[in-house]
Amino acid sequence: MTTALPAQRACSVPATIKGLSLVANSQFEWAERAPGELSPDEVIIEVAGCGVCHTDIGFAYEGIPTRHVLPLILGHEIAGRVVLAGDRAGNWIGRSVIVPAVIPCGTCDACRGGRPTICRKQFMPGNDADGGFATHVRVPARGLCPVPEELPRGISLAMLSVVADAVTTPYEAIRRSGLTADDVAVFVGAGGIGGFGVQIAAGLGAAVVAIDVDANRLELASGHGAALALNARECGDVKSAVRTFAKQSGRHGIGFKVFETSGTAAGQQTAFSLLDPGAHLAIVGYTAQKVEVRLSNLMAFDATARGNWGCPPDQYPNALAMVIDGKIQIQPFIEMHALEEAQQVLEAVHHHQLRRRAVLAPQPRDTQQGTMR
Amino acid sequence: MTTALPAQRACSVPATIKGLSLVANSQFEWAERAPGELSPDEVIIEVAGCGVCHTDIGFAYEGIPTRHVLPLILGHEIAGRVVLAGDRAGNWIGRSVIVPAVIPCGTCDACRGGRPTICRKQFMPGNDADGGFATHVRVPARGLCPVPEELPRGISLAMLSVVADAVTTPYEAIRRSGLTADDVAVFVGAGGIGGFGVQIAAGLGAAVVAIDVDANRLELASGHGAALALNARECGDVKSAVRTFAKQSGRHGIGFKVFETSGTAAGQQTAFSLLDPGAHLAIVGYTAQKVEVRLSNLMAFDATARGNWGCPPDQYPNALAMVIDGKIQIQPFIEMHALEEAQQVLEAVHHHQLRRRAVLAPQPRDTQQGTMR
Repeated sequence: MTTALPAQRACSVPATIKGLSLVANSQFEWAERAPGELSPDEVIIEVAGCGVCHTDIGFAYEGIPTRHVLPLILGHEIAGRVVLAGDRAGNWIGRSVIVPAVIPCGTCDACRGGRPTICRKQFMPGNDADGGFATHVRVPARGLCPVPEELPRGISLAMLSVVADAVTTPYEAIRRSGLTADDVAVFVGAGGIGGFGVQIAAGLGAAVVAIDVDANRLELASGHGAALALNARECGDVKSAVRTFAKQSGRHGIGFKVFETSGTAAGQQTAFSLLDPGAHLAIVGYTAQKVEVRLSNLMAFDATARGNWGCPPDQYPNALAMVIDGKIQIQPFIEMHALEEAQQVLEAVHHHQLRRRAVLAPQPRDTQQGTMR
Repeated sequence: MTTALPAQRACSVPATIKGLSLVANSQFEWAERAPGELSPDEVIIEVAGCGVCHTDIGFAYEGIPTRHVLPLILGHEIAGRVVLAGDRAGNWIGRSVIVPAVIPCGTCDACRGGRPTICRKQFMPGNDADGGFATHVRVPARGLCPVPEELPRGISLAMLSVVADAVTTPYEAIRRSGLTADDVAVFVGAGGIGGFGVQIAAGLGAAVVAIDVDANRLELASGHGAALALNARECGDVKSAVRTFAKQSGRHGIGFKVFETSGTAAGQQTAFSLLDPGAHLAIVGYTAQKVEVRLSNLMAFDATARGNWGCPPDQYPNALAMVIDGKIQIQPFIEMHALEEAQQVLEAVHHHQLRRRAVLAPQPRDTQQGTMR
C-alpha cells in the first residue's frame, strides 16, 4: 500500500520519472523509467531542484565508479516535495523536504554508536540508485529534513537543494571543530563549499579569513562574512597575514580553525601550513592527489586534522535554520538552470566555466526566487 | 624562606648540583652549580632516575635548539624525591614524585581552556632550564605527580622516571582516541613509546596489533599485550593482515585506532595507509621528515589524525596507577645506567646501539629493581 498526494494539491504522482542518465564515461541519455513499487519506508519526491556537485563530475567524467552500475541518474543535492509515500512514511506526503546527501541505515553499529556518517549501509541518491537530475526521485524517508511551506522572500525550495551537501558538509566540519565566537576561522577555498562555510563561521561570531586565487570569489566572501580576504597568488606570506589578523581580531580561541574547502593539493598544502599550537584542520574538499606534509606537526602543535563524510541528517534542521534566519545567503552563490540543460551544465561545470554552484530545476516556477508555494 | 628536609630523612639538601651539561653540538662537560634561591613555588628534587628520550638526542646531536641557551643540563623524564621546597610548596618536602615532562603555567587562556599541553608558558626541564641528567633538579612544584612510598616488588622510583614521557605520552594519545575494549588498536613502532602504548591499550581491553621492523621488539610486544605482531619488512600486506585480525577479534569499535609510535617517515606512511572508515590516527612519534599522503582520505573515511604534545599533569596519576597495578611493565623495556656514564649512554642512544630505553640514575641503590625505600 502506498499513500498518494490528495487530489487538491498542485503536484502530481508521476507515471514515469524522467531524468538525465549516465550510460558510460562522459555519455548521457535522457531516460524515462517507471517509479516501481515503493517499499513501506520509501517516498517519491517531485524534485524542485538538484545541485551539481564535484562528486557528480567525478562520476561522469573522471572514471570514479558509482556504487550502482550504470546507467544511472546522478544528483544527490535534492530538495522537493513528497508526492507518494510507502505504508510507514505516510506522514511525509505533501511535505517540502531536503534529502540528505548521505542517508544512514539507522540500525548498524556505526549508527547506534553515534557515527552515522560512516554507516556502511548508507544510501546516497545518484550513487546507490537514481538521483536528482530528474523530475522525481525515490528515496528512503528516514532522515528527510522538513522545509517550512512559507519561505522568506528570496528563498525558493529549489535553491534549498544545496543545503543537502554544499551547506551541511561545511556546517558539520565547523560543528566538529567546536568553533565559537572566540575563534579565528580560516577557509582555504571560497568556492561552492567555502562560500557557505565562511557565512556559517561568521554567523557563529568567529573572525573569518577567506583565502582563494579567484578575485571574484574573494569579493563575494568579503561581502558575506569574511573580515579578511587573501589572494594566495598575491599574498607573499599567507601565514603571517593570518597571524597579524588574528592578533588584531582580539579573539582568544586556542589555535586556528582551518577549513580546507578548495579540494586541491595546493589548498591542502596552504591549509596544513597554517597549523599553529592547538589548531584544528578540517579536510572538507576532496582531491585524489597526494600532498607532502610534515605530519609530525600535528604532534608538535598538539593539533587535529579531521575529515567528515557529509553530515548526519539530524544536523540538517540546524543548518537549514541558519538559511531561514538569513545567516546563510544562498542566492549569490548559486545559478539556476532548467533540468533540460543538465548535460550542457554538467559539461560547463566539468570545464570550470561556471562561477557559481549550478542547481537544476525541472519546474520553471522554482527557478524564480522568492516564490511562495 | 625555603623548607628543607627534616634531618632524620636519608637524603640531603645539596650544596651544589652536579650534572652533564651540553655546551655545544655534541659537546658535553660535567658541571657543578649552586642550586640558587628557590622561588616560593619551586622545589629541588634529588634525582632517582632520568630517562633518555629522542628529544635529548635531537638537542645534543641534531642541532635542534633548546629554549634556554647552552650550556644546559638536558633530561626531562625525571623521578626523584623533593629535598628542598619554596615557601608555598612545603607540603612536597620529602615526597617521592614524577616531574611532568611539560609543566603548564596553569593560568593562561590555554590552561584555563582545558588545553594545558599547548600552554605557551610551559616549563620543560632540560629545555627551559637545567634538567635531570644530574644529581638534583630545580622545577616548579605545580603538577608534580606523587609516587607511593611503598612500591610493589620490581618497581623502583628511578624506573618510574619513564612515566614522565614514554608512558604518559602514549597514555594521553590513547585517552584522546577514546579507545575502549571494543576497539582494535594498532601500534606502528614497538620501541620505547610503542612498547608502553601496547600495554596501555591491552590494559584497557583492546585487541592490539604491534608493527615493527625489529624482531626483538615484536617479541617483547607479543609478551606484553600484542595479540598480533607484524614485521613490516616480512608482511607483504600489512593492511590485509590487520583487517583479517580485526574480523577475527570480534571487536565492533568504529574504525581502527592507529598509533604512530615509531617517529619515522616509513612508519607514518604505514600508519596513514591503515585509515579505514571512522579511524583515529594518533601521531605520537616525531620526525622532521615530510611524508606524501592523500590527506583527502581523512574526508573520505570520516577519519581523524591527532597529535599530542605530551600529557597534561592531571593524567599522570592515572598512568602511574596502571604501572602500580601491574598493567604496564616497565622493567623489560628499560635499562639502568649510572649517571656517570651519561655521555657514553647518550652516544649509544644516538647511534641506535641500545635496545631498550636508557635511564640514568645518580644513586646506585636505585639501579636495583624492587628496592623498597
